[in-house]
Amino acid sequence: MEAKEIDRKMIRPSIPSGSRDFSSEEVYKRQYIFRIIKGVFEKYGYQPIETPVMENLETLEGKYGEEGDRLLFRILNSGDFKKDISASEFAESTAHQLIPKVAAKGLRYDLTIPFARYVVMHQNEINFPFKRYQIQPVFRADRPQRGRYREFYQCDADVIGSDSLVNEMELVRIFDEVFSILGITVTIKLNNRKILSGMAASINASNKFSDITVAIDKLDKIGLQGVRQQLTKNGLSESQIQILEKFFSLTGEAKQMLNEAKLLLIDSETGLKGIAEVEKIIELLDISGTTKAAVEVNFTLARGLDYYTGAIMEVKPNEIKMGSIGGGGRYDDLTGVFGLKGVSGVGISFGADRIYDVMEESKLFPATTQTGIKILFTHFNEASLNYSLPLLQQVRVEEIPA
Amino acid sequence: MEAKEIDRKMIRPSIPSGSRDFSSEEVYKRQYIFRIIKGVFEKYGYQPIETPVMENLETLEGKYGEEGDRLLFRILNSGDFKKDISASEFAESTAHQLIPKVAAKGLRYDLTIPFARYVVMHQNEINFPFKRYQIQPVFRADRPQRGRYREFYQCDADVIGSDSLVNEMELVRIFDEVFSILGITVTIKLNNRKILSGMAASINASNKFSDITVAIDKLDKIGLQGVRQQLTKNGLSESQIQILEKFFSLTGEAKQMLNEAKLLLIDSETGLKGIAEVEKIIELLDISGTTKAAVEVNFTLARGLDYYTGAIMEVKPNEIKMGSIGGGGRYDDLTGVFGLKGVSGVGISFGADRIYDVMEESKLFPATTQTGIKILFTHFNEASLNYSLPLLQQVRVEEIPA
Repeated sequence: MEAKEIDRKMIRPSIPSGSRDFSSEEVYKRQYIFRIIKGVFEKYGYQPIETPVMENLETLEGKYGEEGDRLLFRILNSGDFKKDISASEFAESTAHQLIPKVAAKGLRYDLTIPFARYVVMHQNEINFPFKRYQIQPVFRADRPQRGRYREFYQCDADVIGSDSLVNEMELVRIFDEVFSILGITVTIKLNNRKILSGMAASINASNKFSDITVAIDKLDKIGLQGVRQQLTKNGLSESQIQILEKFFSLTGEAKQMLNEAKLLLIDSETGLKGIAEVEKIIELLDISGTTKAAVEVNFTLARGLDYYTGAIMEVKPNEIKMGSIGGGGRYDDLTGVFGLKGVSGVGISFGADRIYDVMEESKLFPATTQTGIKILFTHFNEASLNYSLPLLQQVRVEEIPA
Repeated sequence: MEAKEIDRKMIRPSIPSGSRDFSSEEVYKRQYIFRIIKGVFEKYGYQPIETPVMENLETLEGKYGEEGDRLLFRILNSGDFKKDISASEFAESTAHQLIPKVAAKGLRYDLTIPFARYVVMHQNEINFPFKRYQIQPVFRADRPQRGRYREFYQCDADVIGSDSLVNEMELVRIFDEVFSILGITVTIKLNNRKILSGMAASINASNKFSDITVAIDKLDKIGLQGVRQQLTKNGLSESQIQILEKFFSLTGEAKQMLNEAKLLLIDSETGLKGIAEVEKIIELLDISGTTKAAVEVNFTLARGLDYYTGAIMEVKPNEIKMGSIGGGGRYDDLTGVFGLKGVSGVGISFGADRIYDVMEESKLFPATTQTGIKILFTHFNEASLNYSLPLLQQVRVEEIPA
């Protein structure tokens, strides 16, 4: 029995669920996507940085909410990890309480918090505004499922230390340009956290802001009736819901929508400020040239991320049924948690795995992603080997993979 | 006190010791090195694969010796990590004994074992001989010191499923070509594990093979007297040491050295086989063209890695005092531990961090590694902003970073 078990183990090596091996073909295709994203980032003046896979847990914990803390991968302390725990402490404590004693490091959960940490640590070497991009893997102890991995790449571009809306405009252009080069036709949706706040304020429900955004963010998934039910469950009255409905039933041409929303937000200074910001971004886009992607305003866009304070963006493919393949927004005080206050930033992220899937499904990868072998020499005896080796080397001198 | 502590924590975010942030300039320089290595790997027919950062511990444990097991970073199981440990078990067990109950995954320690695991898992999709390269970070819980990191990149090329010495010759050429492009003048040292075995056998000390190789591997560091002392301590007699000394005092022209060594190994079939292999590699190198690097035979080269069974290679820079910046060798049964027996492989690895240091010290990075911003537009008012935005976009259409 013992021997059989070992044998089975030996012939079936595996990798952790939610992680992946990539074959050469997959690596080439992924690199093709990364290369295009990098190229556009650099064209817009973003520069690469890299941060470690492992961060101190004090950098990561408390930054992603309770859910995020639960999903952090933690590194067991090296050496005698139990030395700081007495037997009685072990018996009386929960696993959660013991974590600080057995783990001091964790795996990077996203690229945004490490970026904020980087900016604060290196603030004296950095010229602000600081435009950086970062393409690295992140790790989440999420339940693996189709399209959701425990180890996956994020491709982020953020600018920090500038509150100019030119940045938002340029990030929209980056989305536009990347997806245009990749051949994916997309719609870029814009909203603003201040508009969402204004909406909540306009129905005297600022205290339910979070519930409201969570509910309307699901409009695509659960439909109007579903959102209504959820809002009712959250304690909103029929008249409050009716006003909200006016907002999220606004569709169509951006300028028209913004003008109509202004009337609804007439009493909310914050809400009007949000409208003005979206208007400005669209004006800047118009000035700097046409986009290939459709850019539309969508008041139901919330992206559930608490740290956005201004613009919110999301990109969806037009021809394939798929969640967002890009998103982002402005956060006014990202580095505050690390002690550097009042520095505004705005950033976007590309969902490389979903982009890969869209490209596969739509057969958008060019045949040339693979730098394959062009010439194969073969030999049947010593003489032909000795004959072909100098030729082989000559072919390689000409930079031909062989 | 409490508040002050939090404050101090807030203004001093840090990263784990032995890990690094890379600035844009460093990223560009590192990418320059990786790009050249990749380019040469692909030219020689090697194709990229990628494996996950996290591997199951059963894949990693027991593969790197006791020392290696100690240096593995382990991932604390998610959720209630203590649920499988009773209070009494906790009290009575060492940390080491409890590890299997609290951790099932670990961080990649090198690229070779994950490669072996990959080959066995994907053996039905792979065409042998399989030439793969891999450039990814690895993790070791080593004591950090100058030039030694806990998170660092390896750049490996291995071919598996072929015992032709043409592979060894080509790997020497890859070393030669990469360092020639980078501008680092190097010496490539060759040895063979079978020669080392033969040496031990020729003095009737096969049982002390490991001690002997460890000792002579240190010749560079501790000098002849140091090696002598160590060998004496290991229980070798003066006459045994004198014969060994004949071996490792052989220097100079390769063919001459090999002929002299043949006489010393006349009674060892294994040793003579090792000599013949080195001779063949040198012959194949001669046939396929000259190398820019000096290629020399060095009988003291051991590289302390237990899994090498044939060729051993090492690269050192000529003009900078520095350890090896590349190395490799043949291993006859790497995938055996995962149940796929009798598949021979040979591979090399580039030490990217040391190469970086050599390049910095010798000022070898070209000024063009950095794809920096070429044009900066600035505006002082709305009018000049509106004027410059279309220009800026036009410049980017011409692929000029701005």
